[in-house]
Amino acid sequence: MDIEKVVLEIGQRASKASEELGKAASTTKNQGLIEAANAIRSQSKQIVSANHKDLENTSGKGLSKAMIDRLKLDDNGIEAMAVGLEEIAKLEDPVGNILDSWERPNGLAISRITVPLGVIGVIYESRPNVTADAGGLCLKSGNAVILRGGSESYNSSTAILNALRDGLRKVDLPLEAIQMVPTTDRSAVHQLLGLSKYIDVIVPRGGKGLIEAVQTESKIPVFAHLEGICHTYINEYSDPMMACDIVLNGKMRRTGICGATETLLIDMKASESHLPSILDALIAAGCEIKGDKPTQGADKRVKNASELDWSTEYLDSIISIKQVTGVDDAIMHINRYGSEHTDAIVTNDENIAEKFLSGVNSAIVLHNASTQFADGGEFGMGAEIGIATGKLHARGPIGLEQLTTFKYVVRGNGQVRP
Amino acid sequence: MDIEKVVLEIGQRASKASEELGKAASTTKNQGLIEAANAIRSQSKQIVSANHKDLENTSGKGLSKAMIDRLKLDDNGIEAMAVGLEEIAKLEDPVGNILDSWERPNGLAISRITVPLGVIGVIYESRPNVTADAGGLCLKSGNAVILRGGSESYNSSTAILNALRDGLRKVDLPLEAIQMVPTTDRSAVHQLLGLSKYIDVIVPRGGKGLIEAVQTESKIPVFAHLEGICHTYINEYSDPMMACDIVLNGKMRRTGICGATETLLIDMKASESHLPSILDALIAAGCEIKGDKPTQGADKRVKNASELDWSTEYLDSIISIKQVTGVDDAIMHINRYGSEHTDAIVTNDENIAEKFLSGVNSAIVLHNASTQFADGGEFGMGAEIGIATGKLHARGPIGLEQLTTFKYVVRGNGQVRP
Repeated sequence: MDIEKVVLEIGQRASKASEELGKAASTTKNQGLIEAANAIRSQSKQIVSANHKDLENTSGKGLSKAMIDRLKLDDNGIEAMAVGLEEIAKLEDPVGNILDSWERPNGLAISRITVPLGVIGVIYESRPNVTADAGGLCLKSGNAVILRGGSESYNSSTAILNALRDGLRKVDLPLEAIQMVPTTDRSAVHQLLGLSKYIDVIVPRGGKGLIEAVQTESKIPVFAHLEGICHTYINEYSDPMMACDIVLNGKMRRTGICGATETLLIDMKASESHLPSILDALIAAGCEIKGDKPTQGADKRVKNASELDWSTEYLDSIISIKQVTGVDDAIMHINRYGSEHTDAIVTNDENIAEKFLSGVNSAIVLHNASTQFADGGEFGMGAEIGIATGKLHARGPIGLEQLTTFKYVVRGNGQVRP
Repeated sequence: MDIEKVVLEIGQRASKASEELGKAASTTKNQGLIEAANAIRSQSKQIVSANHKDLENTSGKGLSKAMIDRLKLDDNGIEAMAVGLEEIAKLEDPVGNILDSWERPNGLAISRITVPLGVIGVIYESRPNVTADAGGLCLKSGNAVILRGGSESYNSSTAILNALRDGLRKVDLPLEAIQMVPTTDRSAVHQLLGLSKYIDVIVPRGGKGLIEAVQTESKIPVFAHLEGICHTYINEYSDPMMACDIVLNGKMRRTGICGATETLLIDMKASESHLPSILDALIAAGCEIKGDKPTQGADKRVKNASELDWSTEYLDSIISIKQVTGVDDAIMHINRYGSEHTDAIVTNDENIAEKFLSGVNSAIVLHNASTQFADGGEFGMGAEIGIATGKLHARGPIGLEQLTTFKYVVRGNGQVRP
């Protein structure tokens, strides 16, 4: 197979399909999503059987249990994909919204209107359900999508793609609106990342290794976050119970997500009043504690935190704890060691809270709430394709709105410029 | 001079200054701009004398008359810079605006608030006035700026920088908020474009060669347009007089700007009724006409347009004319040969206009108005640092608003995620 040629043609077809999809009516796109959900349900046997094939192929390849769990699709997983598509159908259409409009003294009426980005490339690891999620979100936002899933999920993703395309076919939308790279060869990713003429944005979904590789190589803008080194800062003027709940939830609700708290910053003055109950709760929940010298002095169960710990995303039941001298010290630490993802303050003092919310340079800053709320669903966006920490365009959860851009539409009656 | 080290330190200082500048009050920034305007006026002698030095240095270097015109600063030019800064002071502060806010069922109050981008690198040719424009716009939008002007304007830019910094000094803002690369060595540009750790956005201002070089090399997002191949499409259902005025203005008001019409698309059915007066008007104004076969057949003064003409930005008194079979044909031509910058339709038919406005993929689309309105000032944005044709973040005129990004601020009262 001439991979360069195959990928180029996929890009060209996607670009062409995006023009038609960009003009599609909301009702057509929504019906397409519902038909795709129906097709996923009615083809569940084929999808499960393709998934079995994928699972068989992994034997002897030394995949971790977590990877096999993510790869595996059962009836619940298939139903969840179908429901996910139906949920996306219910969301508001992000295309054609008037973001702003004004009239100039010369009578020109200017408006800023949302339009699809065009073509989105989604590069993901072996999680077959991303095929349906990403396909559905791109369809709804009027974007053509090129999917490149992990090689271990190739058969499952292909079976899901077939169901999605049945949805497109039923409503006469171009099948090239959702395409998959038809090879597991790694050089195809390289070709995709150079296709800046046809692909507008790349969304990588997976671990740090994948994101880093994509960001380094891509000639196309990438919506992603490399890591989520999230902090919870406990100010001295805070309720010890609330502080404990927010830290425990921020760290331990799910340790493997990007919004999990990795470092707890606690005011020296709150150490005596707040720290014992927080440490007890974390340790009871199975969390390992690494702390700076004062924290180690306060409790024997605290292990030593080295300089490296302040910039480590554990994604595990481990937390680092540092004592700070106040909100300014906390802000300085976060802006130095954090990843501009999500950071929280717990305090009853409004002025201190405002200082923190404006001083921390992260995409999401929270007051008196858990960092685990960093999620498109929790934000009410309905669904997200990821979370971004870049400063441009997509920042925070990447939902339907972030998959659009805008154009200026100017209406006149013969105006010429003096 | 160790250029790598010098540029790195400039980046680090800018990053540090941007934190302070991002928090500065509107009144402080505005007073700084007014003080800078005063300093430019009171130091006009030094600026003019530095400019003389630059002009003397160019002798024998074979600079074009246009380049020398752009380099030259007289009292009017200096006054214009001062007035420009005062105008920027009058604009609304783009930082701290609530773009959106909503409350979740669990009581979390979420808002999206504008924040500065951080550090902006401006790379420009030998137009000393850009020093003041770019410095002023970045200051107002809370961004630190690193300026790198053309080597021929080095002395002038340095003198202007000194005045701007006097403004910063008067209001106790960090002088590192506006820095200039202290060397005319070209390798400094290379260093700047690799400084993605400290610079958030690069804005190149200049000709196609400069933009292309920056876009190719930069590891940092670039806000720019490579070219403006703008079209005016005359639909058959249009007023011949209005059509003639809009084409003449779109092409000839100023031929060297990016919003100038380069190609006229005219409906075959409008050829007889509309074309003669348009050709007469263009030729009377000194415009050279290149046309397709039917246009050549209609008038002997029309020269031959080759395939290359459809993708040529003349930036001169030359226009290419092509006859099309209707609005769909016009849209197809524009999306194929255009540069996604600015395109206009002239028609009295609202449905045809809507088809054009939604079908053309450009940053700015106009109905019954001249393409030369593609300008931040004409849009009412007050001032612009350029025009962008990228799909992300900054599209169309790059004004103060486009020099900001946003963060999500989430306010709770102890919420944890279930």
